[in-house]
Amino acid sequence: MNPLSDSPFLAACRAEPHEHTPVWFMRQAGRSLPEYRKIRGDGSILDAIKNADLSTEITLQPVHRYNTDAAILYSDIVVPLHALGFGVEIHPGIGPVVETPFSSADDLKRLRPLQPEDDTPYVLETIQQLVKVLNVPLIGFAGAPFTLASYLIEGAPSRTYARTKTLMLEDPALWDSLMDRLVEIVISSLHSQIASGVSAIQLFDSWAGALSPAVYERFVLPHSKKIFSAINALNIPTIHFGVGTGEILELMASAGSSVMGIDWRTPLDIARMRLGPEAILQGNLDPAICFASEEVVANEVADILGRNKSHPGHIFNLGHGVLPETNPEVLEKVVEQVHSYPLNMAERNGS
Amino acid sequence: MNPLSDSPFLAACRAEPHEHTPVWFMRQAGRSLPEYRKIRGDGSILDAIKNADLSTEITLQPVHRYNTDAAILYSDIVVPLHALGFGVEIHPGIGPVVETPFSSADDLKRLRPLQPEDDTPYVLETIQQLVKVLNVPLIGFAGAPFTLASYLIEGAPSRTYARTKTLMLEDPALWDSLMDRLVEIVISSLHSQIASGVSAIQLFDSWAGALSPAVYERFVLPHSKKIFSAINALNIPTIHFGVGTGEILELMASAGSSVMGIDWRTPLDIARMRLGPEAILQGNLDPAICFASEEVVANEVADILGRNKSHPGHIFNLGHGVLPETNPEVLEKVVEQVHSYPLNMAERNGS
Repeated sequence: MNPLSDSPFLAACRAEPHEHTPVWFMRQAGRSLPEYRKIRGDGSILDAIKNADLSTEITLQPVHRYNTDAAILYSDIVVPLHALGFGVEIHPGIGPVVETPFSSADDLKRLRPLQPEDDTPYVLETIQQLVKVLNVPLIGFAGAPFTLASYLIEGAPSRTYARTKTLMLEDPALWDSLMDRLVEIVISSLHSQIASGVSAIQLFDSWAGALSPAVYERFVLPHSKKIFSAINALNIPTIHFGVGTGEILELMASAGSSVMGIDWRTPLDIARMRLGPEAILQGNLDPAICFASEEVVANEVADILGRNKSHPGHIFNLGHGVLPETNPEVLEKVVEQVHSYPLNMAERNGS
Repeated sequence: MNPLSDSPFLAACRAEPHEHTPVWFMRQAGRSLPEYRKIRGDGSILDAIKNADLSTEITLQPVHRYNTDAAILYSDIVVPLHALGFGVEIHPGIGPVVETPFSSADDLKRLRPLQPEDDTPYVLETIQQLVKVLNVPLIGFAGAPFTLASYLIEGAPSRTYARTKTLMLEDPALWDSLMDRLVEIVISSLHSQIASGVSAIQLFDSWAGALSPAVYERFVLPHSKKIFSAINALNIPTIHFGVGTGEILELMASAGSSVMGIDWRTPLDIARMRLGPEAILQGNLDPAICFASEEVVANEVADILGRNKSHPGHIFNLGHGVLPETNPEVLEKVVEQVHSYPLNMAERNGS
């Protein structure tokens, strides 16, 4: 039994009563924090992630500063692919870059099964260190197979995902083989994170919103479904997130996560109209709004909380990651406001 | 009376019967065509646009090659702002870049009213040359005030539009003043294009999909409405387009254009469910799909035509601009397929 089981974050993931709306921020650990920039050093983020003591400290920083209701492991979705030796690196200011992108069946060999204890021991060590000291749940995560594949195939961040779409449409058998390998890698990684102590996981299908519903349904959904089916068997909450996913929200939800992450384009009340009144949602303040004044931010936060109507299945978050130039004081205020919002169940039930 | 009034494109813009589904492609004139690369030269695209003979020829190239049902003026949405001396340039491989971005009320002075005859005579000359030789309608266009403002404020293409959102939320009065200036400039530009002979116009609010519905409704919609209200008075078809606009489609449609441009994320049948059975739609093949095989592309085209169910209010197009690496032969085939699709009104009425 997880001693944090009754924490606001985990209770909200089950839509059970809890004392305040839980809040955390995607990319809460990172460049927006001066204490991060101070200890992070100059090397690649992948090297920082390999240093378990450093990653532990970086993961804790935003929890201490903001008083968030969850920690999220300081890591990156390409860590397992990097560890397998696929030749993925992260270039500052660009993002993941692949020296020899995936282009043919021969490249499948470069995606052997992940042995987390041998390939990414530092990830497990960081988690083990963290759960000893954290008094809020720790969230583990992985990239969804489509988003991972898009990096492997494009070789760099893309605006069109043209090569990825071409490969799936032109050679569905190769695409499915690639997805199968990635599904296995993702499940291994998540299993090992859970065994090491994370209390929940988030699957980032950040770029799935670039696909039409028909393409998502045929080429992505079956694979993401396998992941949630494997992880739900372990009885821990799962969150499924992407940006610009309004048109595929029902499909993404059908992949089977306990919680759906929503970006700012879809108001929470609209999302719940589409996904059903019991839907458990995470989101959805536009991270760009954090550059506005305290008053503007407070109004937007109030609007989001209002649209949730004190539904017990709401985890407050941004609609995408914290932007590096964000003033941490703004996020401190957001946490205070979310925590002080009355969660009046009686009122909700009566409304 | 426009002699092309009964052309398939203009008839479809009014949802009146016509002999085949009309088709044109956003950015059909441009880098994907070898004949374009041959005559375009090395200079800035803004210099090419200033050469009316060259722009006329470039506009005609895709009409001749593809047999499209409309031509679209070879120009760019930042042309009026460049012509006013705001310091907007277009850098190859980057896009519009502004030397001194818009940041305060002082910058409003840099946006005097547009005098199209003096500021952009080459645009009008190109149109006048084109309408003499074209046997299909010519589409003029402008950037919508939000998308233009995003370039002026960000100073370069952006993924987050953080400065633009901050300005509108922080200083609504300054935002509205900026929008007012841009609305005036856009209306002047479109009026002059219409007076010179274009048969329809498209308003590109390409990046409006980055906004939440509430922000779009408050800060963008009233301004775009003014433009359609001014242009609709001239009784020519108007098209309103943006990418990733699924969540704001009804709001965008309420701005008052005759036709809504839809990107590939929203299937046409879903768009018509939202906008009403009489909605006139343009779109919506994913431009990235044009890299796939003939068979895959043909299936996607058939799917789009099928979802339209022979509705007379459909103009076939891509869901965004032609990608520069596109093989023109693929688009030739798309036009043939769209033109040969039976527009069976009887069947539609009976279904």
